[in-house]
Amino acid sequence: MSERRSTLLAALRQAVGAAQVLTHDDPGADLSAWEQDWRQRAHGRALAVVRPGSTAEVAEVVRACAAAGVSIVPQGGNTGLVVGSVPDDSGTQVVLSLTRLNAVRGLDAANLTLTVEAGCVLQTLQEHARQAGFLLPLSLAAEGSCTIGGNLATNAGGTQVVRYGNARDLCLGLEVVTAQGEVWSGLSGLRKDNTGYDLRDLFVGSEGTLGIITAATLKLFPQPAATLTAWAAVPSLQAAVDLLGLAQQRLAAGLTGFEVMGQFALSLVARHMPQLRVPLWQDTPYCVLLENSDSEGEDHARAQFEGLLEAAMEQGLVSDAVVAESIAQAQGLWHIRESIPLAQAQEGLNIKHDISLPVSRIPAFCDEADALLQREIPGVRLVNFGHLGDGNLHYNVQAPEGEDAKKFLAGQETLVNTLVFDAVARYHGSISAEHGVGSLKAGHLPHYKDPVALGLMRAIKQALDPQQTMNPGRVLVSP
Amino acid sequence: MSERRSTLLAALRQAVGAAQVLTHDDPGADLSAWEQDWRQRAHGRALAVVRPGSTAEVAEVVRACAAAGVSIVPQGGNTGLVVGSVPDDSGTQVVLSLTRLNAVRGLDAANLTLTVEAGCVLQTLQEHARQAGFLLPLSLAAEGSCTIGGNLATNAGGTQVVRYGNARDLCLGLEVVTAQGEVWSGLSGLRKDNTGYDLRDLFVGSEGTLGIITAATLKLFPQPAATLTAWAAVPSLQAAVDLLGLAQQRLAAGLTGFEVMGQFALSLVARHMPQLRVPLWQDTPYCVLLENSDSEGEDHARAQFEGLLEAAMEQGLVSDAVVAESIAQAQGLWHIRESIPLAQAQEGLNIKHDISLPVSRIPAFCDEADALLQREIPGVRLVNFGHLGDGNLHYNVQAPEGEDAKKFLAGQETLVNTLVFDAVARYHGSISAEHGVGSLKAGHLPHYKDPVALGLMRAIKQALDPQQTMNPGRVLVSP
Repeated sequence: MSERRSTLLAALRQAVGAAQVLTHDDPGADLSAWEQDWRQRAHGRALAVVRPGSTAEVAEVVRACAAAGVSIVPQGGNTGLVVGSVPDDSGTQVVLSLTRLNAVRGLDAANLTLTVEAGCVLQTLQEHARQAGFLLPLSLAAEGSCTIGGNLATNAGGTQVVRYGNARDLCLGLEVVTAQGEVWSGLSGLRKDNTGYDLRDLFVGSEGTLGIITAATLKLFPQPAATLTAWAAVPSLQAAVDLLGLAQQRLAAGLTGFEVMGQFALSLVARHMPQLRVPLWQDTPYCVLLENSDSEGEDHARAQFEGLLEAAMEQGLVSDAVVAESIAQAQGLWHIRESIPLAQAQEGLNIKHDISLPVSRIPAFCDEADALLQREIPGVRLVNFGHLGDGNLHYNVQAPEGEDAKKFLAGQETLVNTLVFDAVARYHGSISAEHGVGSLKAGHLPHYKDPVALGLMRAIKQALDPQQTMNPGRVLVSP
Repeated sequence: MSERRSTLLAALRQAVGAAQVLTHDDPGADLSAWEQDWRQRAHGRALAVVRPGSTAEVAEVVRACAAAGVSIVPQGGNTGLVVGSVPDDSGTQVVLSLTRLNAVRGLDAANLTLTVEAGCVLQTLQEHARQAGFLLPLSLAAEGSCTIGGNLATNAGGTQVVRYGNARDLCLGLEVVTAQGEVWSGLSGLRKDNTGYDLRDLFVGSEGTLGIITAATLKLFPQPAATLTAWAAVPSLQAAVDLLGLAQQRLAAGLTGFEVMGQFALSLVARHMPQLRVPLWQDTPYCVLLENSDSEGEDHARAQFEGLLEAAMEQGLVSDAVVAESIAQAQGLWHIRESIPLAQAQEGLNIKHDISLPVSRIPAFCDEADALLQREIPGVRLVNFGHLGDGNLHYNVQAPEGEDAKKFLAGQETLVNTLVFDAVARYHGSISAEHGVGSLKAGHLPHYKDPVALGLMRAIKQALDPQQTMNPGRVLVSP
């Protein structure tokens, strides 16, 4: 063990206590939970995993690493999808796990705010809010294990963005440990504050490359009196877009969910999870799941929904529809939507995309991209679904029926990515809507991002983290 | 005329055409419209006023000034309240007026977006949206002359923030000319885009100190089917806060306005504008103006409003209330609210504040600040009103009855500011909620802003504008 390494380990043990510094030298050490990403695409090796228990300890860890010239990989629930929170395989990086910072610091009912530490699990916070009579509207598949610090660091999206916005929009203030190990106390319950540059939004979505979020003040909303879910068959993607417009007009902010699902995506759920009984999918190219949250009550919500669907049918936007009759039925419909990723995994590996487009361009984009892919890879199958209300599609590409999925991935991933990303660029979309950049897409940014924007990003990274201590190689490829 | 100056003027004339470069050497020149701020607190002298007609011309102007080592003061409608858009009195700064960039580049109905140039007047854009059947919900007193570029550069607030957020929240993308004269093409109709740092929100609210916003893509909303206004007398500020909570619960996102007005503020309107007939103010310490925007129609909106006010009366939160019976009556109620600044001006100069606090702390803050001011300046009168829904108060301090206002200002402004700002700091509020920093408050930031945040802001300024070309001395005091 080099002297520099042992000096650093001693400093880290001093900072957080020996029990909270894990290394491969520990007897029976298994650090794979921290070294391996969620989708198991990357297997790194850490110098150490450090688990501070307070903001002051986080700051001390950062100062120790900066002094040693060792880089830090901040980690929350480690549920990210773009390889942004695991160490590289050099064995020289420190994983800084935030999971012990899991206190709820306070709920201010009259101000509709909740102040929490970064390591709190999202679902725990949703529950905390609910028990106080409020709604914390951030909701995504990993909510049972992701942490709010990671949600903010990656500006997580999810299923309620059409009404409540992304994680960024739900955050009023932050506490951050900078790359120099200073603490910015920017927790704020203020809805207006124009005293200088918007540092909050700079750290939100920066994926731990500028500093470490240790706590946040979040917006709460009153709980709706009733939440209703409907499932509609639509004759085309254009009809789905038009239905969205109609729903926004008639339900206004009551529209809290608007998901689209292609026929092939639903066929996979029907094939691999027949017990879920997918409705209406057989005779229609797309289905839509709508959620209506109402401040008056269930009767009003139902009348609103029925009026909307009736009007949509008259306009030819919906061919058939069901409105859930109970909470269990509503959960069942959501469960079908949420089972698409698992169903496609059971069908075999595929090439995943998380793209966004102006809502108005989605039908034309899909026509073009579908045709391009079919031309280049005859028989290719498209698992197209996502948050249409936000223009966000998970436009995934599956091997032709019967073809070996692994071979398909190895042979076609680069071609497929290029075809899809180039089409996204032509339609002024984004190659990462809600998952972030991480390591997985950092190499794509120089090609798909405005060069002036990239230059500004590099200048900011250099200004705030000149030593490249914070999560190097993520978002921006190393210089 | 120095050679350097004449070289620069030649380059500017080359860039934008001689007719669009105004100087004091022009026969009959009167540049006061660009050199003097809205409230006439500052009278600067420009080297030249330059009026580019395109983004490319803006970039050329910036490059010419940067090459000459001359700093730029970007200016929109010049309606700011903190001296942020006029030149200093050195005669060495170039005012870059954006008003000729006033094209609407496009409206995308299905995507609910409007792409516009910086020099468009806000009211023109509201009208443009309305004629297409949509709502652009940014609304503030200066809307008839302020420009959207200035609104974004200062992250303007206004009367609908409780529902739609600040200017920042209404912006999806920007086009910006950097301090180096490069163009970042960041116009975007995307509601989700996680490909890197949030540059948009960094430029929004940076008051022209990091670059020049030349165009923006804004969010639109469906027009509500009906908008109703109510006026309620409340027995205390705490009752107003409780009424806000009840309104948020019952109206949810229908609540689009929630203004509070103190008795003395309303008495000034009643005194100086008796024709406006202020309702309910005589027997109550505060009145509240509520706005309910409904997607169903007037009957539903009225029933909702009546239900809310009935419940509020039962709970003792409202002692009396009126719901406007017509659009004219609703406009009349808003007109009273909007006339407070003019009424207090007629009463005499006063010391203005634009502060924000956690909504829950507002009653305690006002109790404390009112008492402190009364103790230090017996007889002092408080014109307290503002956007309670956002925790934003215009907490203005008027001389005791009969005292000379000018003398009061000269003698007491520093003391009053210190008392108010220190109290704001104790309650974790902000000394600038929606007006920004400009020159007026730049000197206060080192005292009231977190020092780590200030350090981060300085590092960002240095990284993006190392030559201090862009609006120097605003937001951050010059180094």
